[in-house]
Amino acid sequence: MKRTIFLLAAVTAVVGVVAITADARGNNDETAAPVFGVKIPSGYRGWKLVSVAHEQGDLNDLRAILGNETAIKAYRDKALPFPDGTMIARLSWSYISSEENNKAFGRYQSFVAGPPINVQFMVKDSGRYGETGGWGFAQFKDGKPADEKLHKTCFACHQSSKAQDYLFTHYAP
Amino acid sequence: MKRTIFLLAAVTAVVGVVAITADARGNNDETAAPVFGVKIPSGYRGWKLVSVAHEQGDLNDLRAILGNETAIKAYRDKALPFPDGTMIARLSWSYISSEENNKAFGRYQSFVAGPPINVQFMVKDSGRYGETGGWGFAQFKDGKPADEKLHKTCFACHQSSKAQDYLFTHYAP
Repeated sequence: MKRTIFLLAAVTAVVGVVAITADARGNNDETAAPVFGVKIPSGYRGWKLVSVAHEQGDLNDLRAILGNETAIKAYRDKALPFPDGTMIARLSWSYISSEENNKAFGRYQSFVAGPPINVQFMVKDSGRYGETGGWGFAQFKDGKPADEKLHKTCFACHQSSKAQDYLFTHYAP
Repeated sequence: MKRTIFLLAAVTAVVGVVAITADARGNNDETAAPVFGVKIPSGYRGWKLVSVAHEQGDLNDLRAILGNETAIKAYRDKALPFPDGTMIARLSWSYISSEENNKAFGRYQSFVAGPPINVQFMVKDSGRYGETGGWGFAQFKDGKPADEKLHKTCFACHQSSKAQDYLFTHYAP
Protein backbone atom coordinates (compact mmCIF):
# COMPACT_ATOMS: atom_id res chain seq x y z
CA MET A 1 0.00 0.00 0.00
CA LYS A 2 2.81 2.36 1.01
CA ARG A 3 4.58 1.49 -2.23
CA THR A 4 1.45 2.23 -4.29
CA ILE A 5 1.06 5.66 -2.67
CA PHE A 6 4.74 6.41 -3.25
CA LEU A 7 4.46 5.43 -6.92
CA LEU A 8 1.31 7.47 -7.36
CA ALA A 9 3.03 10.49 -5.81
CA ALA A 10 6.05 10.02 -8.08
CA VAL A 11 3.87 9.74 -11.19
CA THR A 12 1.91 12.86 -10.18
CA ALA A 13 5.16 14.78 -9.73
CA VAL A 14 6.45 13.71 -13.15
CA VAL A 15 3.16 14.60 -14.86
CA GLY A 16 3.30 18.00 -13.15
CA VAL A 17 6.81 18.68 -14.41
CA VAL A 18 5.90 17.61 -17.95
CA ALA A 19 2.82 19.86 -17.94
CA ILE A 20 4.84 22.87 -16.74
CA THR A 21 7.54 22.27 -19.36
CA ALA A 22 4.99 21.95 -22.14
CA ASP A 23 3.23 25.11 -21.00
CA ALA A 24 6.42 27.15 -20.99
CA ARG A 25 7.10 26.16 -24.60
CA GLY A 26 3.73 27.29 -25.89
CA ASN A 27 0.11 26.37 -26.11
CA ASN A 28 -0.08 22.72 -25.10
CA ASP A 29 -3.55 22.23 -26.66
CA GLU A 30 -2.05 22.17 -30.14
CA THR A 31 0.11 19.58 -31.80
CA ALA A 32 3.54 20.74 -32.91
CA ALA A 33 3.93 21.26 -36.66
CA PRO A 34 6.25 18.75 -38.41
CA VAL A 35 9.86 19.45 -39.43
CA PHE A 36 10.39 22.46 -37.12
CA GLY A 37 8.25 21.40 -34.13
CA VAL A 38 6.69 24.86 -33.82
CA LYS A 39 3.48 25.06 -31.75
CA ILE A 40 0.83 27.76 -31.97
CA PRO A 41 2.17 30.56 -29.71
CA SER A 42 -0.39 31.48 -27.09
CA GLY A 43 -1.84 34.97 -27.41
CA TYR A 44 -0.59 35.55 -30.97
CA ARG A 45 -3.95 37.07 -32.04
CA GLY A 46 -3.19 39.97 -29.68
CA TRP A 47 0.24 40.73 -31.15
CA LYS A 48 0.90 44.09 -32.79
CA LEU A 49 0.47 44.71 -36.48
CA VAL A 50 3.42 44.62 -38.86
CA SER A 51 1.46 45.06 -42.09
CA VAL A 52 -1.42 43.86 -44.27
CA ALA A 53 -1.57 42.30 -47.73
CA HIS A 54 -3.84 40.84 -50.37
CA GLU A 55 -2.91 37.79 -52.42
CA GLN A 56 -4.87 37.19 -55.59
CA GLY A 57 -4.78 33.94 -57.58
CA ASP A 58 -5.32 30.61 -55.85
CA LEU A 59 -4.75 32.13 -52.41
CA ASN A 60 -7.36 34.90 -52.86
CA ASP A 61 -7.08 36.18 -49.32
CA LEU A 62 -6.66 39.19 -47.09
CA ARG A 63 -3.86 38.82 -44.59
CA ALA A 64 -2.42 40.46 -41.54
CA ILE A 65 1.14 40.00 -40.37
CA LEU A 66 1.54 40.37 -36.61
CA GLY A 67 4.66 40.25 -34.46
CA ASN A 68 5.45 39.67 -30.80
CA GLU A 69 7.16 42.50 -28.87
CA THR A 70 10.64 41.33 -29.93
CA ALA A 71 9.59 41.34 -33.59
CA ILE A 72 7.94 44.77 -33.47
CA LYS A 73 10.93 46.34 -31.69
CA ALA A 74 13.33 44.92 -34.29
CA TYR A 75 11.09 46.06 -37.17
CA ARG A 76 10.81 49.60 -35.75
CA ASP A 77 14.53 49.79 -34.99
CA LYS A 78 15.31 48.36 -38.45
CA ALA A 79 17.62 45.95 -36.65
CA LEU A 80 18.68 42.99 -38.79
CA PRO A 81 18.95 40.09 -38.27
CA PHE A 82 15.90 39.63 -36.06
CA PRO A 83 16.97 38.45 -32.58
CA ASP A 84 16.21 35.05 -31.09
CA GLY A 85 12.74 35.09 -29.59
CA THR A 86 11.24 36.92 -32.57
CA MET A 87 7.88 35.45 -33.53
CA ILE A 88 5.81 36.39 -36.57
CA ALA A 89 2.21 35.35 -37.26
CA ARG A 90 0.64 35.54 -40.71
CA LEU A 91 -3.16 35.31 -40.52
CA SER A 92 -5.07 34.70 -43.71
CA TRP A 93 -8.81 35.16 -44.28
CA SER A 94 -11.00 34.63 -47.34
CA TYR A 95 -11.28 37.72 -49.51
CA ILE A 96 -14.99 38.51 -49.57
CA SER A 97 -17.09 41.37 -50.88
CA SER A 98 -18.89 43.38 -48.19
CA GLU A 99 -22.45 44.11 -49.25
CA GLU A 100 -22.90 46.18 -46.09
CA ASN A 101 -19.93 48.45 -46.85
CA ASN A 102 -20.78 48.70 -50.55
CA LYS A 103 -24.21 50.00 -49.59
CA ALA A 104 -22.63 52.72 -47.43
CA PHE A 105 -20.13 53.69 -50.16
CA GLY A 106 -22.83 53.54 -52.83
CA ARG A 107 -20.64 51.38 -55.09
CA TYR A 108 -19.09 47.92 -55.37
CA GLN A 109 -15.61 48.42 -53.96
CA SER A 110 -15.26 46.96 -50.48
CA PHE A 111 -13.53 43.69 -49.64
CA VAL A 112 -13.15 42.42 -46.13
CA ALA A 113 -11.83 39.46 -44.14
CA GLY A 114 -14.17 36.48 -44.35
CA PRO A 115 -13.74 33.05 -42.74
CA PRO A 116 -10.17 32.25 -41.68
CA ILE A 117 -8.06 30.18 -44.12
CA ASN A 118 -4.96 29.37 -42.13
CA VAL A 119 -2.23 30.85 -39.96
CA GLN A 120 1.54 30.65 -40.37
CA PHE A 121 4.31 31.32 -37.88
CA MET A 122 8.00 32.07 -38.05
CA VAL A 123 10.01 31.61 -34.87
CA LYS A 124 13.62 32.77 -34.56
CA ASP A 125 15.94 30.42 -32.69
CA SER A 126 19.36 30.54 -34.30
CA GLY A 127 20.62 27.57 -32.26
CA ARG A 128 17.73 25.27 -33.03
CA TYR A 129 17.12 26.35 -36.64
CA GLY A 130 20.65 27.09 -37.81
CA GLU A 131 20.14 25.26 -41.11
CA THR A 132 17.17 27.43 -42.13
CA GLY A 133 18.48 30.91 -41.46
CA GLY A 134 17.62 30.65 -37.77
CA TRP A 135 13.89 30.35 -38.46
CA GLY A 136 11.38 27.65 -37.67
CA PHE A 137 8.25 27.65 -39.82
CA ALA A 138 4.73 26.36 -39.20
CA GLN A 139 1.29 26.42 -40.79
CA PHE A 140 -1.97 25.55 -39.04
CA LYS A 141 -5.58 25.33 -40.16
CA ASP A 142 -8.28 25.13 -37.51
CA GLY A 143 -5.57 24.45 -34.96
CA LYS A 144 -4.13 21.50 -36.91
CA PRO A 145 -0.66 21.62 -38.49
CA ALA A 146 -0.11 21.15 -42.22
CA ASP A 147 1.86 18.11 -43.34
CA GLU A 148 5.61 17.54 -43.55
CA LYS A 149 5.71 18.02 -47.32
CA LEU A 150 4.39 21.59 -47.04
CA HIS A 151 6.76 22.49 -44.22
CA LYS A 152 9.72 21.41 -46.32
CA THR A 153 8.88 24.14 -48.87
CA CYS A 154 8.91 27.10 -46.42
CA PHE A 155 12.58 27.97 -46.27
CA ALA A 156 13.23 27.56 -49.99
CA CYS A 157 10.53 30.14 -50.77
CA HIS A 158 11.67 32.57 -48.05
CA GLN A 159 15.22 32.50 -49.50
CA SER A 160 14.16 35.24 -51.90
CA SER A 161 13.78 37.69 -48.99
CA LYS A 162 17.16 36.88 -47.48
CA ALA A 163 18.02 40.60 -47.53
CA GLN A 164 15.39 41.18 -44.85
CA ASP A 165 16.40 38.12 -42.81
CA TYR A 166 13.98 35.87 -44.75
CA LEU A 167 10.88 37.94 -43.96
CA PHE A 168 8.78 39.09 -46.90
CA THR A 169 6.79 41.66 -44.97
CA HIS A 170 7.98 45.23 -44.46
CA TYR A 171 6.70 47.28 -41.54
CA ALA A 172 3.78 49.53 -42.54
CA PRO A 173 4.22 53.00 -41.00
CA MET B 1 12.64 91.08 -6.46
CA LYS B 2 10.75 88.81 -4.08
CA ARG B 3 7.55 89.56 -6.01
CA THR B 4 9.17 88.69 -9.38
CA ILE B 5 10.38 85.34 -8.06
CA PHE B 6 6.94 84.60 -6.62
CA LEU B 7 5.27 85.44 -9.96
CA LEU B 8 7.77 83.32 -11.87
CA ALA B 9 7.10 80.38 -9.54
CA ALA B 10 3.34 80.83 -9.95
CA VAL B 11 3.61 80.94 -13.75
CA THR B 12 5.82 77.84 -13.78
CA ALA B 13 3.29 75.98 -11.64
CA VAL B 14 0.40 76.94 -13.96
CA VAL B 15 2.36 75.92 -17.07
CA GLY B 16 3.14 72.59 -15.39
CA VAL B 17 -0.53 71.89 -14.65
CA VAL B 18 -1.57 72.81 -18.21
CA ALA B 19 1.10 70.50 -19.65
CA ILE B 20 -0.01 67.58 -17.46
CA THR B 21 -3.69 68.12 -18.35
CA ALA B 22 -2.94 68.24 -22.06
CA ASP B 23 -0.84 65.08 -21.81
CA ALA B 24 -3.56 63.12 -20.02
CA ARG B 25 -6.03 63.94 -22.79
CA GLY B 26 -3.86 62.58 -25.59
CA ASN B 27 -0.93 63.39 -27.75
CA ASN B 28 -0.36 67.10 -27.32
CA ASP B 29 1.83 67.38 -30.45
CA GLU B 30 -1.22 67.10 -32.68
CA THR B 31 -4.02 69.54 -33.31
CA ALA B 32 -7.50 68.36 -32.45
CA ALA B 33 -9.70 67.49 -35.43
CA PRO B 34 -12.65 69.87 -36.03
CA VAL B 35 -16.28 69.17 -35.03
CA PHE B 36 -15.50 66.41 -32.49
CA GLY B 37 -12.20 67.70 -31.10
CA VAL B 38 -10.59 64.26 -31.26
CA LYS B 39 -6.78 64.19 -31.07
CA ILE B 40 -4.51 61.41 -32.29
CA PRO B 41 -4.49 58.87 -29.42
CA SER B 42 -0.94 58.14 -28.34
CA GLY B 43 0.25 54.59 -29.00
CA TYR B 44 -2.57 53.71 -31.39
CA ARG B 45 -0.18 51.99 -33.84
CA GLY B 46 0.41 49.38 -31.15
CA TRP B 47 -3.28 48.55 -30.61
CA LYS B 48 -4.57 45.08 -31.38
CA LEU B 49 -6.01 44.09 -34.72
CA VAL B 50 -9.77 44.02 -35.30
CA SER B 51 -9.65 43.22 -39.02
CA VAL B 52 -8.28 44.13 -42.44
CA ALA B 53 -9.92 45.34 -45.66
CA HIS B 54 -9.30 46.48 -49.20
CA GLU B 55 -11.20 49.35 -50.80
CA GLN B 56 -11.09 49.58 -54.57
CA GLY B 57 -12.25 52.62 -56.57
CA ASP B 58 -11.01 56.09 -55.65
CA LEU B 59 -9.74 54.92 -52.25
CA ASN B 60 -7.64 52.05 -53.68
CA ASP B 61 -6.09 51.13 -50.36
CA LEU B 62 -5.26 48.36 -47.95
CA ARG B 63 -6.45 49.06 -44.44
CA ALA B 64 -6.15 47.74 -40.93
CA ILE B 65 -8.65 48.41 -38.19
CA LEU B 66 -7.12 48.42 -34.72
CA GLY B 67 -8.76 48.83 -31.33
CA ASN B 68 -7.63 49.77 -27.84
CA GLU B 69 -8.08 47.20 -25.04
CA THR B 70 -11.67 48.35 -24.34
CA ALA B 71 -12.56 47.95 -28.02
CA ILE B 72 -10.99 44.50 -28.40
CA LYS B 73 -12.64 43.20 -25.24
CA ALA B 74 -16.07 44.42 -26.40
CA TYR B 75 -15.53 42.94 -29.88
CA ARG B 76 -14.47 39.54 -28.47
CA ASP B 77 -17.33 39.53 -25.93
CA LYS B 78 -19.75 40.63 -28.68
CA ALA B 79 -20.95 43.27 -26.22
CA LEU B 80 -22.99 46.04 -27.82
CA PRO B 81 -23.05 49.00 -27.50
CA PHE B 82 -19.31 49.59 -27.17
CA PRO B 83 -18.53 51.11 -23.76
CA ASP B 84 -17.23 54.63 -23.18
CA GLY B 85 -13.48 54.64 -23.60
CA THR B 86 -13.61 52.49 -26.74
CA MET B 87 -11.20 53.78 -29.38
CA ILE B 88 -10.89 52.49 -32.93
CA ALA B 89 -8.15 53.37 -35.44
CA ARG B 90 -8.52 52.79 -39.16
CA LEU B 91 -5.13 52.95 -40.91
CA SER B 92 -5.07 53.20 -44.68
CA TRP B 93 -2.10 52.58 -46.98
CA SER B 94 -1.73 52.76 -50.75
CA TYR B 95 -2.50 49.46 -52.48
CA ILE B 96 0.70 48.57 -54.28
CA SER B 97 1.95 45.56 -56.18
CA SER B 98 4.89 43.77 -54.57
CA GLU B 99 7.47 42.85 -57.18
CA GLU B 100 9.50 41.10 -54.47
CA ASN B 101 6.60 38.84 -53.44
CA ASN B 102 5.51 38.19 -57.03
CA LYS B 103 8.98 36.91 -57.78
CA ALA B 104 8.74 34.47 -54.85
CA PHE B 105 5.26 33.30 -55.87
CA GLY B 106 6.27 33.11 -59.54
CA ARG B 107 3.20 35.10 -60.62
CA TYR B 108 1.62 38.54 -60.43
CA GLN B 109 -0.69 38.28 -57.41
CA SER B 110 0.70 40.08 -54.39
CA PHE B 111 -0.46 43.46 -53.13
CA VAL B 112 0.92 45.08 -50.03
CA ALA B 113 0.68 48.24 -47.94
CA GLY B 114 2.54 51.13 -49.58
CA PRO B 115 2.87 54.71 -48.32
CA PRO B 116 0.29 55.70 -45.70
CA ILE B 117 -2.81 57.58 -46.96
CA ASN B 118 -4.52 58.66 -43.77
CA VAL B 119 -5.77 57.46 -40.41
CA GLN B 120 -9.24 57.72 -38.90
CA PHE B 121 -10.38 57.37 -35.32
CA MET B 122 -13.66 56.70 -33.55
CA VAL B 123 -13.82 57.53 -29.85
CA LYS B 124 -16.76 56.50 -27.69
CA ASP B 125 -17.91 59.07 -25.15
CA SER B 126 -21.68 58.89 -24.81
CA GLY B 127 -21.85 62.06 -22.73
CA ARG B 128 -19.78 64.21 -25.05
CA TYR B 129 -21.00 62.78 -28.37
CA GLY B 130 -24.63 62.00 -27.55
CA GLU B 131 -25.87 63.49 -30.83
CA THR B 132 -23.74 61.16 -32.96
CA GLY B 133 -24.47 57.81 -31.39
CA GLY B 134 -21.90 58.39 -28.66
CA TRP B 135 -19.01 58.53 -31.15
CA GLY B 136 -16.50 61.22 -31.97
CA PHE B 137 -14.86 60.92 -35.39
CA ALA B 138 -11.53 62.18 -36.73
CA GLN B 139 -9.34 61.90 -39.80
CA PHE B 140 -5.67 62.83 -40.00
CA LYS B 141 -3.10 62.84 -42.78
CA ASP B 142 0.56 63.22 -41.86
CA GLY B 143 -0.56 64.23 -38.38
CA LYS B 144 -2.83 67.02 -39.62
CA PRO B 145 -6.62 66.83 -39.26
CA ALA B 146 -8.98 66.96 -42.25
CA ASP B 147 -11.34 69.93 -42.53
CA GLU B 148 -14.69 70.58 -40.90
CA LYS B 149 -16.64 69.72 -44.05
CA LEU B 150 -15.27 66.17 -44.12
CA HIS B 151 -15.89 65.61 -40.42
CA LYS B 152 -19.54 66.55 -40.86
CA THR B 153 -20.00 63.56 -43.21
CA CYS B 154 -18.73 60.86 -40.80
CA PHE B 155 -21.81 60.12 -38.75
CA ALA B 156 -24.24 60.17 -41.68
CA CYS B 157 -22.22 57.46 -43.44
CA HIS B 158 -21.80 55.33 -40.30
CA GLN B 159 -25.60 55.34 -39.79
CA SER B 160 -25.80 52.36 -42.11
CA SER B 161 -23.96 50.19 -39.57
CA LYS B 162 -26.16 51.24 -36.65
CA ALA B 163 -26.84 47.55 -35.90
CA GLN B 164 -23.20 47.17 -34.84
CA ASP B 165 -23.13 50.44 -32.88
CA TYR B 166 -22.06 52.43 -35.98
CA LEU B 167 -18.93 50.36 -36.64
CA PHE B 168 -18.56 48.88 -40.12
CA THR B 169 -15.81 46.45 -39.19
CA HIS B 170 -16.49 42.99 -37.81
CA TYR B 171 -13.87 41.20 -35.72
CA ALA B 172 -11.78 38.79 -37.82
CA PRO B 173 -11.31 35.50 -35.95
